[in-house]
Amino acid sequence: MKKKIVILPGDGIGKEVTACGKKVLEQVAECFGHQFSFDYATIGHEAIEATGNPLPDESLEKMKNSDAILFGAVGHPKYDNDPTAKVRPEQGLLKMRKELGLYANLRPIKLFDELLAASSIKPEILKGADILFFRELTGDVYFGERGRKEQGATAYDTMIYSRYEVERIAHKAFKAALTRGKKVTSVDKANVLESSRLWREVVQEVAKQYPDVTVEHMFVDAAAMKLIQNPRSFDVVVTGNLFGDILTDEASQIAGSMGMLASASVGDTVGLYEPIHGSAHDITGKGIANPLASILSAALLLDISFGLKEESETVIKAVEQTLRDGYRTRDIADASTAHEKILGTEVMGNV
Amino acid sequence: MKKKIVILPGDGIGKEVTACGKKVLEQVAECFGHQFSFDYATIGHEAIEATGNPLPDESLEKMKNSDAILFGAVGHPKYDNDPTAKVRPEQGLLKMRKELGLYANLRPIKLFDELLAASSIKPEILKGADILFFRELTGDVYFGERGRKEQGATAYDTMIYSRYEVERIAHKAFKAALTRGKKVTSVDKANVLESSRLWREVVQEVAKQYPDVTVEHMFVDAAAMKLIQNPRSFDVVVTGNLFGDILTDEASQIAGSMGMLASASVGDTVGLYEPIHGSAHDITGKGIANPLASILSAALLLDISFGLKEESETVIKAVEQTLRDGYRTRDIADASTAHEKILGTEVMGNV
Ligand SMILES: CC(C)[C@H](C(=O)O)[C@@H](O)C(=O)O
Ligand SMILES: CC(C)[C@H](C(=O)O)[C@@H](O)C(=O)O
Repeated sequence: MKKKIVILPGDGIGKEVTACGKKVLEQVAECFGHQFSFDYATIGHEAIEATGNPLPDESLEKMKNSDAILFGAVGHPKYDNDPTAKVRPEQGLLKMRKELGLYANLRPIKLFDELLAASSIKPEILKGADILFFRELTGDVYFGERGRKEQGATAYDTMIYSRYEVERIAHKAFKAALTRGKKVTSVDKANVLESSRLWREVVQEVAKQYPDVTVEHMFVDAAAMKLIQNPRSFDVVVTGNLFGDILTDEASQIAGSMGMLASASVGDTVGLYEPIHGSAHDITGKGIANPLASILSAALLLDISFGLKEESETVIKAVEQTLRDGYRTRDIADASTAHEKILGTEVMGNV
Repeated sequence: MKKKIVILPGDGIGKEVTACGKKVLEQVAECFGHQFSFDYATIGHEAIEATGNPLPDESLEKMKNSDAILFGAVGHPKYDNDPTAKVRPEQGLLKMRKELGLYANLRPIKLFDELLAASSIKPEILKGADILFFRELTGDVYFGERGRKEQGATAYDTMIYSRYEVERIAHKAFKAALTRGKKVTSVDKANVLESSRLWREVVQEVAKQYPDVTVEHMFVDAAAMKLIQNPRSFDVVVTGNLFGDILTDEASQIAGSMGMLASASVGDTVGLYEPIHGSAHDITGKGIANPLASILSAALLLDISFGLKEESETVIKAVEQTLRDGYRTRDIADASTAHEKILGTEVMGNV
């Protein structure tokens, strides 16, 4: 198989971890006789520094002409502490999601048995938890009109959803549920928000087309609680952009660490694969970031964009074996991890 | 001391638990020689059934003329499953918060040592966690303009904050921090939302007036994760209405159960005290609801609205003693609880 992959390292630990993800893709190509060609593109703080634009046209063009994208992260503390900054790394990320039509963000939350002890949640609560989140990614308050009024003394953002946006992500969630536990939990705040009431209406309609799938509607506050209280009660979760952002980060604790979680963003065109974790400037350049989320993102890429199931499973199995052998990066180490088995990013990427 | 208290049972288990909270207030009055008079008012589904209005004027008048309000919960499954309902119990709650100017919702999250085992989070992660949330309660997407466009195919809500709204709640949070761990974590999504950027700007300004307090800004997704990963790293948390709704429900898992958490809503006029838990129709009328959150709400009422510290502490100590004696309602029972010590609502309210 011949494929073009764009590596989009972005900011912070994005560079370190995508380097490991890329290496795994190269190894897969070699072992299974595929031809993967790689190109690099810039985004985020790095792109702002170089061009003034968080998503240069050249980057977007490269991505549009590729077969899949392996992405790191964007963000920089400089902007976080300056609420008045006009150009921000995150704008690049949001524009990319919109321009590439990446409306469905899949975030599988599955605990590797070897990491049961690394979570703050009790093993007996976690064991067997296996959740697949569908976070809507190109609508909601992320893309509604926003601004200031009254000489800047009032600020607003618009949460907004249209039927077709809810329909297409709901269909993806229900279809996925058919291949899994046959249950969909739709999360909203329909007791207060009009956009959530539309969301619930549409999900109820779509649900009728999947009589074999049980549908459950949950308010976002209750879902935030239940995810910790009883993670095993969830199968597929579908929710909007903002609630999905919050709940999937929270749910990362089910998997022991954010450092283990991969995500796929798919939609109209090319697929993009990235860790859930962000740019993590506090640990950037120290060589201690966990590369497994990027490696697992590469596995998702092989599976979803290229249909290479065997190759994808080989990567996942290799990650499992590495964990079983006792190797850990610091974020997923627990008291029982032997000191000599705590690895840096690069070494972890090699094993 | 002579005081007028309005009991506002509301829907579902609201009635059962406020009955227990009221009983505790009566006992306190008797033991400490106070004169508390009680009146009842209606709100929510119950009020809709009786008058068509989720917050009858009569209820509002009674509350305005009282010294404190003990509230249960509102909500009914009937409306949850009907996204098109025009009149909803929650409208009563939101209108009440707005009309009474209850802009600061205080939610203390503290684990009773006796309940360490009842949480899904590991005891060693929880031990010593003690968080005080300040959730803004009369602004944000709860009160912004909302509606439909394009023949109902698009729905929107407006997230909106003004400087003065952020200022007044920030001051409350910083003042409280001075009496505690001297740290404030402000939670927003300033990397995306304009209302969050205003929020962050104002909190940064207010922080300058409290040089003894450390301030930290955190994105809501990171906060949702960190609350589970390391709850002890928080002292006072201040956040908007929507993020506060989600994070405090999530944080209830730190306290073992929602059934243990009380909240105080204060602002311009009379204070209102209520459990964090909702109307819980699935267990309504079964006599198994945990009344401790309502009893602890009564304790907050005595402390905050009446300044009766000793009385308040006596109630909290009684709750502690009850737990130490091994008594539990079902929600906070763990495998080690002797069967005969699992109590119903009414009995728990008596001990
Ligand atoms: C960086 C930020 C804008 C982004 C988001 O909120 O979508 C991130 O948190 C994510 O989840 O990918
Ligand atoms: C019932 C609902 C409108 C309410 C809210 O979202 O504020 C509840 O969840 C709460 O936290 O008091």
